[in-house]
Amino acid sequence: MDGLTGFDRSLAGLELLEAAGGKARLRLPVSPAVENINHTLHGGAIATLVDVAGTIAIMSGDRGGRPGVTTDLNVSYFASGQGTVTAEAVVLKNGRTLAFVTVDIRRDDGVLVAQGRMTKHMGPSLAHP
Amino acid sequence: MDGLTGFDRSLAGLELLEAAGGKARLRLPVSPAVENINHTLHGGAIATLVDVAGTIAIMSGDRGGRPGVTTDLNVSYFASGQGTVTAEAVVLKNGRTLAFVTVDIRRDDGVLVAQGRMTKHMGPSLAHP
Amino acid sequence: MDGLTGFDRSLAGLELLEAAGGKARLRLPVSPAVENINHTLHGGAIATLVDVAGTIAIMSGDRGGRPGVTTDLNVSYFASGQGTVTAEAVVLKNGRTLAFVTVDIRRDDGVLVAQGRMTKHMGPSLAHP
Amino acid sequence: MDGLTGFDRSLAGLELLEAAGGKARLRLPVSPAVENINHTLHGGAIATLVDVAGTIAIMSGDRGGRPGVTTDLNVSYFASGQGTVTAEAVVLKNGRTLAFVTVDIRRDDGVLVAQGRMTKHMGPSLAHP
Repeated sequence: MDGLTGFDRSLAGLELLEAAGGKARLRLPVSPAVENINHTLHGGAIATLVDVAGTIAIMSGDRGGRPGVTTDLNVSYFASGQGTVTAEAVVLKNGRTLAFVTVDIRRDDGVLVAQGRMTKHMGPSLAHP
Repeated sequence: MDGLTGFDRSLAGLELLEAAGGKARLRLPVSPAVENINHTLHGGAIATLVDVAGTIAIMSGDRGGRPGVTTDLNVSYFASGQGTVTAEAVVLKNGRTLAFVTVDIRRDDGVLVAQGRMTKHMGPSLAHP
Repeated sequence: MDGLTGFDRSLAGLELLEAAGGKARLRLPVSPAVENINHTLHGGAIATLVDVAGTIAIMSGDRGGRPGVTTDLNVSYFASGQGTVTAEAVVLKNGRTLAFVTVDIRRDDGVLVAQGRMTKHMGPSLAHP
Repeated sequence: MDGLTGFDRSLAGLELLEAAGGKARLRLPVSPAVENINHTLHGGAIATLVDVAGTIAIMSGDRGGRPGVTTDLNVSYFASGQGTVTAEAVVLKNGRTLAFVTVDIRRDDGVLVAQGRMTKHMGPSLAHP
């Protein structure tokens, strides 16, 4: 993805496949930059991918394209991330002040690597509510 | 911290203050490398800091120094991370096969930026259980 | 459901629609017994429903029919539960020692009331791991 | 506790020890009404106790005494709840629109049974935000 700044760039090689109507799909190659000591996708990189993919999904379905401010994030880890993984984010609700999104992360062999859920405050400012 | 590899290095400038007996304290300067578009600490960097600080705390209190494999991680975000933040991790339980740790992340002005909790499987291998 | 004991009985009127192969569907009428002060489904009743529906789904897909011991549970709440709600639980992974399940709770008008995820330790005993 | 209605009453024998300034302590005997099939405190009862204790702590520290609407709740389970347990809830933040609280649940022998965290929307109405 072009135009990434700051910590978004820690997900080296991240590619946006599609984003529209509250859904987004992204791909990330498991390179040394995002590995843990076991040479699989780092748990922090997975959490970051949940955050980035979820935010893009929310923005894609929000009238004002607002990114919001994260208030809660959780991830469950099922299998090691190897090769290339695809994150699929789906907005669960985009309400007056809060948006919720779920993100599945899968390997190319179909194995579910992780699932996360994120809550964002959608106020006009980026300050914490 | 020296000796970091892979995605652990995404937390540029991370410093280990102490780690012993199931507790760990680390410091992270909020530099451009770990920022979001709002120029505060990125939510993914905070989740990664919970993972790294929590893992070091668990290793410090584990007889075999095992890092474990993360099974669940959650973070609540309260305030923007600016300046330098300190992560304080405390092991809640280190059982036969599962370890739990809580992590507080504070700014130097004392404001609580985020709190996370992580569960790790402490089996002999680094494969997912 | 017949045969419920203890706190499972707090979900008065709970009905098991189906359970097989790692999936389960249950219905719960929003009666005074499970309400909050706002006369909608209590957040604790929703969390209990995630636990019960998730456990039944896991047992339905487990060779030994083991219920496991819960290690982590999370719930996000989207809309008020009114009328009758249906919980749909799907096992995400049933590994050697851990099982994961996601649960959607919907109203009859299709509105998603809540989504939860639960992790259970599947050891031979019911002691905490 | 007197005056409880609806699902709050499922926690039979619940006693409020103190609540002031954003902190609350409650006691719950592990009777058959709140047990699981293993005759220890049910995971759903623990989640409900996190919700109830956390809400009382938030109300005790809120100028308007508002209960808020739960948006996210998580619980990690460490040990079986037996005898009588004490829930200790501490508000982490009470902001303009969101409040966060953490809850420890301990047995009388000091063992930590569970830890939960809850996020509530503190708007003027009890509708979901």
